[in-house]
Amino acid sequence: MLTKEEISKTFLDVQEFICLELENEDGFSKFQTDNWLHHSGGGGKSKVIQNGNVFEKGGVNYSAVKGKTPEKLLSSLGINNASENFYATGISIVMHPKNPFNPIIHMNVRYFEMSNGMYWFGGGIDLTPIYFFEEEAKFFHQSLKSVCDSYSKESYTTFKNWADDYFFINHRSETRGIGGIFFDRLNSSSSEGKLKIFEFVHRLALSFAPTYKSIIQQNKNREFSKKNLEWQFQRRGRYVEFNLVYDKGTQFGLETGGRTESILMSLPPMATWQYQYQVTPHSHEERTQNMLKKKIDFINL
Amino acid sequence: MLTKEEISKTFLDVQEFICLELENEDGFSKFQTDNWLHHSGGGGKSKVIQNGNVFEKGGVNYSAVKGKTPEKLLSSLGINNASENFYATGISIVMHPKNPFNPIIHMNVRYFEMSNGMYWFGGGIDLTPIYFFEEEAKFFHQSLKSVCDSYSKESYTTFKNWADDYFFINHRSETRGIGGIFFDRLNSSSSEGKLKIFEFVHRLALSFAPTYKSIIQQNKNREFSKKNLEWQFQRRGRYVEFNLVYDKGTQFGLETGGRTESILMSLPPMATWQYQYQVTPHSHEERTQNMLKKKIDFINL
Repeated sequence: MLTKEEISKTFLDVQEFICLELENEDGFSKFQTDNWLHHSGGGGKSKVIQNGNVFEKGGVNYSAVKGKTPEKLLSSLGINNASENFYATGISIVMHPKNPFNPIIHMNVRYFEMSNGMYWFGGGIDLTPIYFFEEEAKFFHQSLKSVCDSYSKESYTTFKNWADDYFFINHRSETRGIGGIFFDRLNSSSSEGKLKIFEFVHRLALSFAPTYKSIIQQNKNREFSKKNLEWQFQRRGRYVEFNLVYDKGTQFGLETGGRTESILMSLPPMATWQYQYQVTPHSHEERTQNMLKKKIDFINL
Repeated sequence: MLTKEEISKTFLDVQEFICLELENEDGFSKFQTDNWLHHSGGGGKSKVIQNGNVFEKGGVNYSAVKGKTPEKLLSSLGINNASENFYATGISIVMHPKNPFNPIIHMNVRYFEMSNGMYWFGGGIDLTPIYFFEEEAKFFHQSLKSVCDSYSKESYTTFKNWADDYFFINHRSETRGIGGIFFDRLNSSSSEGKLKIFEFVHRLALSFAPTYKSIIQQNKNREFSKKNLEWQFQRRGRYVEFNLVYDKGTQFGLETGGRTESILMSLPPMATWQYQYQVTPHSHEERTQNMLKKKIDFINL
């Protein structure tokens, strides 16, 4: 039977693997490591890279936290037993590349269990291009689909739609980026079932670095203008809006007294807000803006 | 009897007065005016200034909106009658000066009434220095106290403590700035009482421009370095965190389908997030950081 310690250990190994791969890609900056303890028990390891050749800022956080299950969660599950304990472990990644032609990426994989035996896996990967490239979008979604297909036939479509709904900036009526996949509360009544979900989550996490590296390599040396940077800062402002207004992980972390610097490593190094920013008609910026919609089938564009 | 239309008209006049005063202070940029309609009824007038001599970005919003009272509000008031209508009018201001030695300021004054006769006034002014200056803090709080004293003896202390609690970034354990005053749900059973509250709110709103201009003039031509700007961008990041995570007006506006560009005019033109930003010991930045606490008596520092 797969234990929480095995799952944590796997996540910790994946964190190490991803950081090495990204450092290798960056070629200049190294991740800075901070170990921390959570007030309710357990802790984590945050790895942050800044001012690199490729990555202006990025974080790969690992955590394995335990304690009394928050009341709010228990009541949402219809459980009255306030003495339940929880164990939550996962990796969260956000990378903000320097080059505006490279997209922001986010991944989260997580496992949650309670002392009553309930457990689930959750996670996802989504891409936020500053500039939309059709081939990149196709490749990204195809890569996710490959991982999903080895788990189940329908999962890509289900998880892709879920991501469209989740990564949505309601007050802007636009998606954060071109989506990806999102899933939550995956569980199974059998130990084989649990293992199958875990293997899917593990494969997804292992696919992160090669997929993102392929994408990054397309444009990391591309020249860019002040105008490209202006648009990048503008798009990053939307990223901030999503993360601070809507992201459930961020809200949960801040509300339950998580480590603020680790939670907010997701925020960009620099962002702007201009009043009524308008994209130029028929520009690459406008083409990008037009792709910030739900239900686009990027694989068959 | 003071009507909602008279209150709205007063607010509209104050908006005009404040914009003229601030344009005059800026000496270069002018406010851009946008009239808009709210989906549930009524509308507003947003005035935004950008790329000025003194003000990098700022907004002075007026609105007078009506419609069916949101369920959430009714239930928080213990009212079951879903057919209640509301009328809400007010001015909201946020100014982001260019010079990092000039502070960000915020003011809001508002009036709310329902078809059942319930009404209240709310509002406040608070200052967010990038660099703390003792004389400025003293002057600012003394100005607020003068307005409050003409309303009632205890109001400055009450409203000052309220501001300390309201403008607090919980996940950072720090206040947004040096506070000011905040009040909500002020009402009275008599028409003289209502008039007295209105006169207080009006005097407060009229005090905004002269007080802020006096403050701005101290440092608007002061030379600044790249390091000063870096700190400004960092402090503005905290401003974004407060507004998007905690500010009730922002949340209410975004949730109820308000005009996004008017609500988010409060966000700074440019902000940064560095992982574990550290202030230099014994620097002006550190001295500022140390003043971001509740319960500091700025008048008698």
